[in-house]
Amino acid sequence: MSDVSDWWETSIIDMEPGRIDIRGHAIQDLIGNLSFCQMIWLMLRGDMPTTDQARLMEAALVAGVDHGPQAPSIATARMAITCGVGLQSAMASAVNMLGDIHGGAGEQAVLMYHHLRDAGQDRKTALQSWIDQHGPILPGFGHRFHKPVDPRAPRLLQLVAESAANGVVTGVFSDIATWVENHLAETRSTPLPMNIDGATAVIFAELGFEAPLARGLFCLSRSVGILAHAWEQKQQGGRNKGPTPPDYRWTYRP
Amino acid sequence: MSDVSDWWETSIIDMEPGRIDIRGHAIQDLIGNLSFCQMIWLMLRGDMPTTDQARLMEAALVAGVDHGPQAPSIATARMAITCGVGLQSAMASAVNMLGDIHGGAGEQAVLMYHHLRDAGQDRKTALQSWIDQHGPILPGFGHRFHKPVDPRAPRLLQLVAESAANGVVTGVFSDIATWVENHLAETRSTPLPMNIDGATAVIFAELGFEAPLARGLFCLSRSVGILAHAWEQKQQGGRNKGPTPPDYRWTYRP
Amino acid sequence: MSDVSDWWETSIIDMEPGRIDIRGHAIQDLIGNLSFCQMIWLMLRGDMPTTDQARLMEAALVAGVDHGPQAPSIATARMAITCGVGLQSAMASAVNMLGDIHGGAGEQAVLMYHHLRDAGQDRKTALQSWIDQHGPILPGFGHRFHKPVDPRAPRLLQLVAESAANGVVTGVFSDIATWVENHLAETRSTPLPMNIDGATAVIFAELGFEAPLARGLFCLSRSVGILAHAWEQKQQGGRNKGPTPPDYRWTYRP
Amino acid sequence: MSDVSDWWETSIIDMEPGRIDIRGHAIQDLIGNLSFCQMIWLMLRGDMPTTDQARLMEAALVAGVDHGPQAPSIATARMAITCGVGLQSAMASAVNMLGDIHGGAGEQAVLMYHHLRDAGQDRKTALQSWIDQHGPILPGFGHRFHKPVDPRAPRLLQLVAESAANGVVTGVFSDIATWVENHLAETRSTPLPMNIDGATAVIFAELGFEAPLARGLFCLSRSVGILAHAWEQKQQGGRNKGPTPPDYRWTYRP
Repeated sequence: MSDVSDWWETSIIDMEPGRIDIRGHAIQDLIGNLSFCQMIWLMLRGDMPTTDQARLMEAALVAGVDHGPQAPSIATARMAITCGVGLQSAMASAVNMLGDIHGGAGEQAVLMYHHLRDAGQDRKTALQSWIDQHGPILPGFGHRFHKPVDPRAPRLLQLVAESAANGVVTGVFSDIATWVENHLAETRSTPLPMNIDGATAVIFAELGFEAPLARGLFCLSRSVGILAHAWEQKQQGGRNKGPTPPDYRWTYRP
Repeated sequence: MSDVSDWWETSIIDMEPGRIDIRGHAIQDLIGNLSFCQMIWLMLRGDMPTTDQARLMEAALVAGVDHGPQAPSIATARMAITCGVGLQSAMASAVNMLGDIHGGAGEQAVLMYHHLRDAGQDRKTALQSWIDQHGPILPGFGHRFHKPVDPRAPRLLQLVAESAANGVVTGVFSDIATWVENHLAETRSTPLPMNIDGATAVIFAELGFEAPLARGLFCLSRSVGILAHAWEQKQQGGRNKGPTPPDYRWTYRP
Repeated sequence: MSDVSDWWETSIIDMEPGRIDIRGHAIQDLIGNLSFCQMIWLMLRGDMPTTDQARLMEAALVAGVDHGPQAPSIATARMAITCGVGLQSAMASAVNMLGDIHGGAGEQAVLMYHHLRDAGQDRKTALQSWIDQHGPILPGFGHRFHKPVDPRAPRLLQLVAESAANGVVTGVFSDIATWVENHLAETRSTPLPMNIDGATAVIFAELGFEAPLARGLFCLSRSVGILAHAWEQKQQGGRNKGPTPPDYRWTYRP
Repeated sequence: MSDVSDWWETSIIDMEPGRIDIRGHAIQDLIGNLSFCQMIWLMLRGDMPTTDQARLMEAALVAGVDHGPQAPSIATARMAITCGVGLQSAMASAVNMLGDIHGGAGEQAVLMYHHLRDAGQDRKTALQSWIDQHGPILPGFGHRFHKPVDPRAPRLLQLVAESAANGVVTGVFSDIATWVENHLAETRSTPLPMNIDGATAVIFAELGFEAPLARGLFCLSRSVGILAHAWEQKQQGGRNKGPTPPDYRWTYRP
């Protein structure tokens, strides 16, 4: 112990030569006994999830892995690997793009659900106060491609319902999100159905993850698709792959 | 279909409004039915792992999540989050550092195992030809901290042995890696025991992952630790956290 | 022209085989005739700076290149290069950390100066309304290390004064920033002198750069220090350099 | 001084409260007196360039700033900024892609020039031995777009010739690169003219920069274009901009 060691204080990991303890567990007791998803939970929160909790969390992680090469992060991963960098760099450039608009919406959705929960029954007023503060684009609702329904959302909500029925979660955030979806359907000419960010945010909120971790967990999930696409591109080959076939170039407008 | 669509060709994902198919499976059939680890395998390889394969893979993913704040990637994640960036940026800066020396060693270890396998029985000659080409530092062996044994390695090899006994894998790469470890113990004054890169590389090689994916899978695994430390630092607070307590500064040597 | 080309519309660059025009100028007419700093201005704004404007801008770029290895970005660049990645990756991991707290303060300082300018003469009220909205930490003022004076600030302000005397700039933002500094000296027990972010923000504001470009230009400037430190570390050697000498490790606090 | 301070040793910068010295010069003496380009040289090498050296270096930095939105790095910067991240993140994701194939070719070109210089007069044999070791794609020669001539290359070589005439540089690497270009024109059915990487590598080699810095300096140069395009995209707006107009999607090939 010294001021130098204290500068790097953590409750996650303890080590001596030949010993690695993660959250108080010897690493060799975790290896082979925990699923990867359980390990993620343990690392982030310090306690061990029940099997049911882990199963619900796993559904959210599985749902977000990929949305195809038109997602800016996926396109970037594929272009990067043709520039002569390692997989870790392709992943970094791509994960780095999961900002407030692309993936970060899950964090904001959790915050919005918390806001609506804290407001109690007067949800309309609470939703309006959210809009007054954050603008009219509701995080987690609407999709420019999947209309009228993002196929991941109802499946995820179904799993939350099953978990609520079994007492794994309360279902309060599922209830809130469904209310938002219905409210939008009633009050708008075109409905804005719940999207992947909105649905996974329900799960993360139900499981008690703090809002920023909705973003962090999405990054872990999407990293899988990023890696898979970078690797596929590597096998396809290509050098300095641009966004469109080269003959199209771009439009110059002085 | 057009030349523009063809520029972004993939066998990973197919989509229409309301439909997402991953490797030929409707996403709603994967959500809730696959573990996160199985989803990683499906995304990277296209087929579905058996439960036993997934369990072995999972052990390798669990083993690599963290090695504490003195690992450059973990330190970077913690410093980054104090600079006022989102979790995705802290993760990107950190994952980006998992290069040939820090994490990338798993890729090279798989290549070395393949090299030794292809050489058949004359392993000494094959190892020497590897050293002649790549230099004397053998990827996956030796650890500056965990002496004499990295506690993750024997546990991972034990799981490979169990999998080999059950016919899940052949055990050929476990055999090769153990031979290397023994050979180093016999021929050097100080042994160089198998480390985490060497042991997880055995698993990835046994499961048939190509060498670069050993690096990619390590990036997924270590991303968990990176996220956990960034998040812990966020909760601890701090602004512009540097590598040492500020009073130490650095040594100027003109 | 097509919808595909139009997707990537720009007024920065036009090309045909054998021809590259930047902002309407043939590239071969720029090469050898423009300074690097003039080229930065041309790229960002479309017009050509006068010699005097470029000279003032240059001062801000020179001032921000480095603040030593305890800056998280510089430490990260040095650690990254020991992990076996290229200089471009070390630079990326480091530049990525120039967020709202580390470097991004210049952007916020420009916004604060604009806010105070728009308020006219009642600066005290305007400053209070800024604090009400953004909190008590004023961007661009105070330094935990350079007390009482950051040596870069008075030199930069001196150059602004000279430029104002020559009619290159109006001096309005210099006047505002100096007022803030004096106001803080009068109203606080310990003064909070203008720091590098506050002083370069004066220059960028005087020259008419929009606020986000204060951050962007700082990134260009600090990239130089990042590159220099990464390169010096490369020559020093080291493998997986952590933040502190390995024997210190970290403090585990469960 | 302590082992902790010594862990971060540098000859670039020295500091005390109120004092910042860069390469032995007080920062306030550099600000306003050095061009940005001279500061880059000073930071990287420790000595001060002559005006003529800086002017030649500046030409190389100006030449490489941009090659339009089909360059993967530029496309990435533009897409990133629409994902809701700061300019520093857009820059990081993009600079990170300047790998061995996209920008890193300058480093390899310097190495090839050194190789040919060390071989003395028997350049054909030396070129063949380079090809035997590194493959048939010569770094710095050929361009898939600018045929038959990259307009930047002759202009840069002209400036090298002027500098050689004035004794600023020897011209040896210009001579070597021109020989390679002519040799390729004589021995191939389609010529492979010198490209931007090949031409700027001549300048960096003539000025005595070590090979990896050709990559590093290109990163500084291209960072300007990356920033300009990110900023233009920010002003254009857009959310989650993908590589092609959304209606094109991609081609699924199972």
